[in-house]
This record gives sequence, C-alpha cells and structure tokens, in this order.
Amino acid sequence: MRPLRIEGFYAICDLPGEAGPEEARQLATKLLRGGASVLQLRQKDASSRRLLANASLLVDLCRGAGVPFIVNDRVDVAVLVAADGVHLGQEDLPLRAVRSLAPTLAVGVSTHTLEQAEEALREGADYIGFGPVFPTSTKKRPDPVVGLEKLAEVCQRVSVPVVAIGGITAANAARVMEAGAAAVAVIGDVVRADDPEGAARRVAQAALQGRGPR
Amino acid sequence: MRPLRIEGFYAICDLPGEAGPEEARQLATKLLRGGASVLQLRQKDASSRRLLANASLLVDLCRGAGVPFIVNDRVDVAVLVAADGVHLGQEDLPLRAVRSLAPTLAVGVSTHTLEQAEEALREGADYIGFGPVFPTSTKKRPDPVVGLEKLAEVCQRVSVPVVAIGGITAANAARVMEAGAAAVAVIGDVVRADDPEGAARRVAQAALQGRGPR
Repeated sequence: MRPLRIEGFYAICDLPGEAGPEEARQLATKLLRGGASVLQLRQKDASSRRLLANASLLVDLCRGAGVPFIVNDRVDVAVLVAADGVHLGQEDLPLRAVRSLAPTLAVGVSTHTLEQAEEALREGADYIGFGPVFPTSTKKRPDPVVGLEKLAEVCQRVSVPVVAIGGITAANAARVMEAGAAAVAVIGDVVRADDPEGAARRVAQAALQGRGPR
Repeated sequence: MRPLRIEGFYAICDLPGEAGPEEARQLATKLLRGGASVLQLRQKDASSRRLLANASLLVDLCRGAGVPFIVNDRVDVAVLVAADGVHLGQEDLPLRAVRSLAPTLAVGVSTHTLEQAEEALREGADYIGFGPVFPTSTKKRPDPVVGLEKLAEVCQRVSVPVVAIGGITAANAARVMEAGAAAVAVIGDVVRADDPEGAARRVAQAALQGRGPR
C-alpha cells in the first residue's frame, strides 16, 4: 500500500459527462494552483473511454504537483492510469472486491453515519469521507446532514484520516478542520465559482488556518 | 484465453438501472430456457454494487446452463465474478487496456463499420458485434443502419465470430444468419415481449434454421 497523505484541501475535479481533456486540464490546473493537496477526478456521466483519457492526463498533472491523484468509483481506470487511490461511495464496488482487484491502491470510502465509518474501517479503508456536514446542492439526493458534532465524534473514533464533505465553503472550512477533519472536500463552492483558482485558494487557506499547529 | 463458443442466439439481459437480483434472475432464466447460447448482462444505469450483485447471480445461472456469460462494458465486474468475457462498445475502455487488466478474459467489441471491425480484429478481439443490421429503437442515438449486404461483407472479411445486432427479430433472424453471422443478438424483440421466454425460443429457432448445416 502506498502511504497516502490526506490533509488540507481535498479537491474534487467534478466534470460533466461530455467534458474532454481540455476542460479537465483547465479545471485541475486551477485546483492545483489554488493549493489542492489531494485531487480526485469525478465524472459520473462520462463514458469509460473518456474517463480513462481524462484520468490519464490528470495523473500527470498531479505527479508534477506532488499531489496524490484519486479516481472516483472506477477501480479499472485507477489501475490503468496508476492512480494513487480510488474513492468508493456506498453504491460503488465493495472495498474488499476492490482490494482483490488492486491490492496496492489506496482506498477511500464515503460514509454518512458512524456505523458506516466503523464498517469502512473494519474493511480496511485508508481514509474515509464523512458528510454531508452542511446542507449541499451538489448531490441530487443528499444523505441527511450530519453536522459538526457528529463529525467531531467520528474523527475521534476512527484511526484513519477523515475527509469532511458536504456544503463546505471557505467561510466554514476552518471550523470543519477544528472539529478534527484531516481534510475538507469541496465541490460546488470551488468548481462552480467564477474564479475556481481563487475559490480553491480561499478554501485551502481556511483549511490550513483551521488545522492550526499539530 | 478461454475459447468462447459464440453461436446461435446471443441473448442480452438488458435491465433498467434499479433492477435487482430477483428481476435479473427472472429475465435471465427466461432467456436461458428459451435457448440462449450466450448471455450478456447489460445494465448501463445500475450502480457498480448492483451490477456486481446481478453479475454474480447470473454467472451461476449461466454455468448451470453451460452457456458463456459476458458482462457489458465493466471489466472490473467481469473479473470479480469470473465471467467468460467482457463486451466493449466504441465508448468503453479500449481493448488493449482491458487485456492488460484481464489477460484471460474473452473480449468482444461492438463495431458499426468495416473499418471498426478490422481495427477490433487487429487489436485482438475474440468476436465482434456488427450493426445495426436493421433500424432499432433500443438505442437512443443509434449508428447508421448497415444492412444485410454490409453484414455479409464483414462476415467474409473477418476471422472471428460476428454477432449481428440491431432490429433483429424472430422474423428476420434466419436471413441474418444466412448472411454469415455466427450469432444474432436481440434485445427489444425479446426483453420487451409479453412472453420473453417464448420470444427467445422463436429467435433461437430462427437462428438455428438460418444457420443450416455447416
């Protein structure tokens, strides 16, 4: 297992299905320049071929920036481009299945309750996502909001990095980090900003501020 | 490479995204009872976890029936359930990428022109799909109809089994086989029939009839 450093601003390069390499490169470059310390490619509606092309491009950008690169959902694509990890939702392949296909890939799992978080830990997740911390408009059918208290509880209970997600912005990222998150994942507030690079920078700085000296 | 026998009625178990194991089992059982000689699971809108569960169930049904089992698009799922093969469209992962992930899996490729068919052959496809032979309503944006003459030409030119697809019914399956196809793939005329098992049986018989003595 490659040790995966998960901290600060976990950027999600969320692309519409039809977005090609140029769009992927532009958004990822802005996220990296803005201070992303992890980058995940998420393109749920893309064909496999398009996802592979975009992942192949982004892995190089991330290597150049010294930032771990993670592919959402698709272990086959993660292996093909030699990504650092794959991120699984509760409806994606089970963690054990992914491990059997790709033993050296780091695996993160989205969780929405303490029970799911502990289950992911038992199965050997390298990190977990936890949320939605606040109300979010990015997902069509979001899980119930967990809030900062539940986040703090999960961060205390689990032994792997917790990436907080859901409704996080530059304005609340510091408080989220103070609750014990290792990183904050942000989609909407950054990707749909007029200036994604500036928005990324504000989130990355807020995350650093909330982290404080450890 | 497992040698894959591709002939007769190539049944496509085409399921809506939300269909679970019971629906998958029911449809696959009807297709197999009706005389399917190959079965492909195609569930484009399913979550990865659901697809894995359904594939896992269907692979056992197919083993029991002595029929090859093929997963559409997803090489990861095909490997996890030990399917006989994976079927790739032009927008799925490239054949070479799939081979590198799963060297022992048979691979079929959908093609729509002679050029695509020859390209798939060069890349080492174990069989090709070719069509749409007739107008079809199953696909939202179908490729141009190729017709029986073009099908016959492709069957003569390529050295692997050709699975004809697109608008095929029990009424025209014999003519399609006479054009040189090794198998006929049918979705709409069978899966959306009031009696899928009976419809499958009619297609399988027509395919046998068109095949004649070889």
